[in-house]
Amino acid sequence: MKKISDSTINRLSKYYRTLERLQEKNIETVSSDEIAEIDGVTSAQVRKDLSFFGTFGKRGLGYNIEELKNNIGKILGLNQQWNVAVIGVGNIGMALIDYAEFKKQGFLIKLLLDHDKNKIGKKVKNLEIKNFSDAAMHLKNEKIQIVIIAVPSNVAQSVADIAMGAGIGAILNFAPLNIKSPETVMVKNENMSIELEALSYFLANK
Amino acid sequence: MKKISDSTINRLSKYYRTLERLQEKNIETVSSDEIAEIDGVTSAQVRKDLSFFGTFGKRGLGYNIEELKNNIGKILGLNQQWNVAVIGVGNIGMALIDYAEFKKQGFLIKLLLDHDKNKIGKKVKNLEIKNFSDAAMHLKNEKIQIVIIAVPSNVAQSVADIAMGAGIGAILNFAPLNIKSPETVMVKNENMSIELEALSYFLANK
Repeated sequence: MKKISDSTINRLSKYYRTLERLQEKNIETVSSDEIAEIDGVTSAQVRKDLSFFGTFGKRGLGYNIEELKNNIGKILGLNQQWNVAVIGVGNIGMALIDYAEFKKQGFLIKLLLDHDKNKIGKKVKNLEIKNFSDAAMHLKNEKIQIVIIAVPSNVAQSVADIAMGAGIGAILNFAPLNIKSPETVMVKNENMSIELEALSYFLANK
Repeated sequence: MKKISDSTINRLSKYYRTLERLQEKNIETVSSDEIAEIDGVTSAQVRKDLSFFGTFGKRGLGYNIEELKNNIGKILGLNQQWNVAVIGVGNIGMALIDYAEFKKQGFLIKLLLDHDKNKIGKKVKNLEIKNFSDAAMHLKNEKIQIVIIAVPSNVAQSVADIAMGAGIGAILNFAPLNIKSPETVMVKNENMSIELEALSYFLANK
């Protein structure tokens, strides 16, 4: 398969969500124009993005929603379960544990790690917070594939190094810094200011 | 000024952050190649993005970091303070209130609203949670410009409608649905699954 850009992948995630919502309304087919309208992109962009993976639509009939959703889901790896660990059980960590959307898309939080003695042993959503000092063992035992880092900036890199050292190949980082990683590991940074800045841009320039 | 795409704005936010970090290391100039390397885009893309706003760099010398940062900051509206309200003080709301990055970029959370009688009147970070029933009054009193919605999906649209009715023109929505709004209002949706799906795509296709 051709190398697909991050922004294409992000748009596929949006299309997937749009298809889910249409399906909830018992709608069976959709055109690229309709997807484009809902997701705020051009229909040419929608057709181009989907063309990476072969043609799924029928000219004049549009796309079968169930089929298109399953195809995109397969591309995004949403047709399987992923075992996720959250490192750092502060406010962001707690919000993530509670985030119903993750489970719905197949991301199962199976492990919580923290170094705070007052948190270790406590339960959140039936999951016991484990000691970060034994991170490598717990990550292996729970067959964790994706690690979410929700610790302060000053320790985020060392936490990531320990996770990568334990064989983790995918990290979602909430700390506001760029985690350094080898090419074999994918790190995505979630920066909650970025969308706010798109809003301030809009307000400042309107 | 030309209409600039959302993805350009998002990249400008990333460049801005990169420039901040370089500045913290007392570095004074940077080339488009270096910015490109750090932010994982091509240097042609960096130059194209910056060219929207006129040329800031000097051929062969690169960009002056201070100057470029201030220019991008001005474009993004980060050279001023924005008054922000958080509606819904659950785990996500709490995480946002705690998110130091917001304040650093000029987003000042000045108002917390909730409809839960057990939360109203309590203080979080010296800010008293106010009754959502009086939303219009509080939004006006605190001169709120941006509203962050962190309520459950089933009430997110009606909460947004009330905020828009009170004259709010910019909304950041954490509920997993698309908020409907008139063209005069900008709504950005923060979906924390999207970055996770980029990771599962990577793991599923490597």
